Amino acid sequence: MAEGKVLSGAGLRGQVAGKTALSTVGVSGSGLTYRGYDLEDLAENCQFEEVAYLVLKGELPTQAQLTEYKARLKSLRGLPKALKEVLERIPKDAHPMDVMRTGCSVLGNLEPEDTSVVGQFPTQQAAADRMLAIFPSIICYWYRFSHDGVRIDENTDDDSIGGHFLHMLLGKKPSELHSTVMNVSLILYAEHEFNASTFTARVCASTLSDIFSCVTGAIGSLRGPLHGGANEAAMEMIEKFRDAEHAEQEMMGMLARKEKIMGFGHAIYKESDPRNAIIKSWSQKLAADVGDTVLYPVSVRCEEVMWREKKLFCNADFFHASAYHFMGIPTKLFTPIFVMSRLTGWAAHVMEQRADNRIIRPSAEYVGPEPRKVTPIASR
Amino acid sequence: MAEGKVLSGAGLRGQVAGKTALSTVGVSGSGLTYRGYDLEDLAENCQFEEVAYLVLKGELPTQAQLTEYKARLKSLRGLPKALKEVLERIPKDAHPMDVMRTGCSVLGNLEPEDTSVVGQFPTQQAAADRMLAIFPSIICYWYRFSHDGVRIDENTDDDSIGGHFLHMLLGKKPSELHSTVMNVSLILYAEHEFNASTFTARVCASTLSDIFSCVTGAIGSLRGPLHGGANEAAMEMIEKFRDAEHAEQEMMGMLARKEKIMGFGHAIYKESDPRNAIIKSWSQKLAADVGDTVLYPVSVRCEEVMWREKKLFCNADFFHASAYHFMGIPTKLFTPIFVMSRLTGWAAHVMEQRADNRIIRPSAEYVGPEPRKVTPIASR
Repeated sequence: MAEGKVLSGAGLRGQVAGKTALSTVGVSGSGLTYRGYDLEDLAENCQFEEVAYLVLKGELPTQAQLTEYKARLKSLRGLPKALKEVLERIPKDAHPMDVMRTGCSVLGNLEPEDTSVVGQFPTQQAAADRMLAIFPSIICYWYRFSHDGVRIDENTDDDSIGGHFLHMLLGKKPSELHSTVMNVSLILYAEHEFNASTFTARVCASTLSDIFSCVTGAIGSLRGPLHGGANEAAMEMIEKFRDAEHAEQEMMGMLARKEKIMGFGHAIYKESDPRNAIIKSWSQKLAADVGDTVLYPVSVRCEEVMWREKKLFCNADFFHASAYHFMGIPTKLFTPIFVMSRLTGWAAHVMEQRADNRIIRPSAEYVGPEPRKVTPIASR
Repeated sequence: MAEGKVLSGAGLRGQVAGKTALSTVGVSGSGLTYRGYDLEDLAENCQFEEVAYLVLKGELPTQAQLTEYKARLKSLRGLPKALKEVLERIPKDAHPMDVMRTGCSVLGNLEPEDTSVVGQFPTQQAAADRMLAIFPSIICYWYRFSHDGVRIDENTDDDSIGGHFLHMLLGKKPSELHSTVMNVSLILYAEHEFNASTFTARVCASTLSDIFSCVTGAIGSLRGPLHGGANEAAMEMIEKFRDAEHAEQEMMGMLARKEKIMGFGHAIYKESDPRNAIIKSWSQKLAADVGDTVLYPVSVRCEEVMWREKKLFCNADFFHASAYHFMGIPTKLFTPIFVMSRLTGWAAHVMEQRADNRIIRPSAEYVGPEPRKVTPIASR
């Protein structure tokens, strides 16, 4: 009994909180699959839109299905006028994840999911598609308006979600290489079983609430520095290092002072994070493309030091920092990109929870005061 | 193993997911305590602001502390201009819980919690107080603007949160009786251990996210018809009944058709809901005050039928329906009142989670496809 309580008190780690057909994480200490497909296979051979289709609908699309799906997503990029007006009222110094959370919540007011019959959700796939298409528009509209005073045109003709995002953000059509890397990055972050933000979405879904509430809540959880945001923290660290030698000295100092170093290790993976090798190789290509001689070697040295000193491996976030930076993405937008991708997993988990639901309502161990009587306020 | 999985798959029911000093729910099949005080004792002897102080800060206030606390809350009722402008852009037919969720999220942009040092939250109490004071202003401002075209003055001089809410909503100072009932109602809904919305807030808090994210997520979960909203559903049912006889006939028909009847039974309480007797007695007083001869007798008959036929007792929500109705509150605002009250529990749980935190990240039982290879898209 006592032992069970200790386990559960510590974040439900290792406790089964439900079933999923969506992914496996670190089943043999490493490895990640989406609906049975290995992540490396998907990242090598698919577009993000194919993977989103797979995660949301269960199977990879045919060419005809993919063409139609991408055309539909492309048609859903536009921001309602009221949403633009809300985004224009959010200050420049707001946390970009607060902007994402608010944008999603407002969308749920303007284009609510049909929940008119309790327990039936006829528009859930449409709502997921809408969010998938519009989230890049939300973050870029706010960012460009608040930072540059520009009202962007969010209806670009870019073929992919990743390309669309880069185009709106940077004001020019992205290179083939940049589009490809964004595509891979969105695949890597798309789904990850019962992580804290996904679990947030499932708890919300279990009350039979609407999907915008579920995703709004999930964004709030991903905002936390123990969950999303590790790639931003990694960027802030590596950009302080002049070269690989300097990185090694500073890392050793941080380790000696027992400072937390972000971007390494994982709650579930024990040997390696399967996403790291993929994004690392793309970061290397981007470094060559941009002529970098600092940030990539610094990142490699950090990886070596952490493995040598602590047997800690890079997780998905560490080489994402340099990769995003090489493409010109401001550090504060790294976690919103995570949202644009993980939305697919969140939405699929919401649908899965709804399909076999019981409200998620655990118990607590009471550790508070013994029963007591109210003392009249005059006598306190 | 199999049995454990079934249990956990079914909403973590009965599984301890953490510790709390805030409340006990149905320890011996009934009964509810906040920090050791019985709910009946609190509802009899305290103002809501005293109870909020107790829940948020740990002890009942002295008279001097309460006076200062109420004065501070009173000074925090005003809506920032940008928040008003957002509320004016939310359509009349929006779900009021979507409005609450959005209002909270926007506030988190305009007046963010200080989370500049990871794991330290120096302004969490101030943020909770701000939400406690401003939530009634948010819902009433939107409601009156969208429904009546009126821009209300949210800085009333009402002494209590409940009175302030009624004043803004109905445009006149509430009677002593109405203020008292609102006060009691807010006490009854203030805290309830690890229910789904509170658990949502704790999962979010466990990532060390900000308190506005946690509460925004909790509002999204309370929106679900399996959680909040039962008092609205109860109202929609009882207002269709002409008198007690008609109610009995209709209820018997619904039971025969196995229709879901809201406002009865509870996931945790097995014998009775301690909140029912309290709100029922106030509903009776309000019925006498307003000269009702239908709704209260109808409600009593519904209670009798459900107990006789199903051994199901009224939960907190059932007599709240008639009580709120007698005070002139539109049915669609019942669940937002729940938010104004439960905020105290949510915020206190966020603080408690932060004080002894590990990220909440359970596992899942995989029930998806076996490992498979990506077929090139041209061959699918």
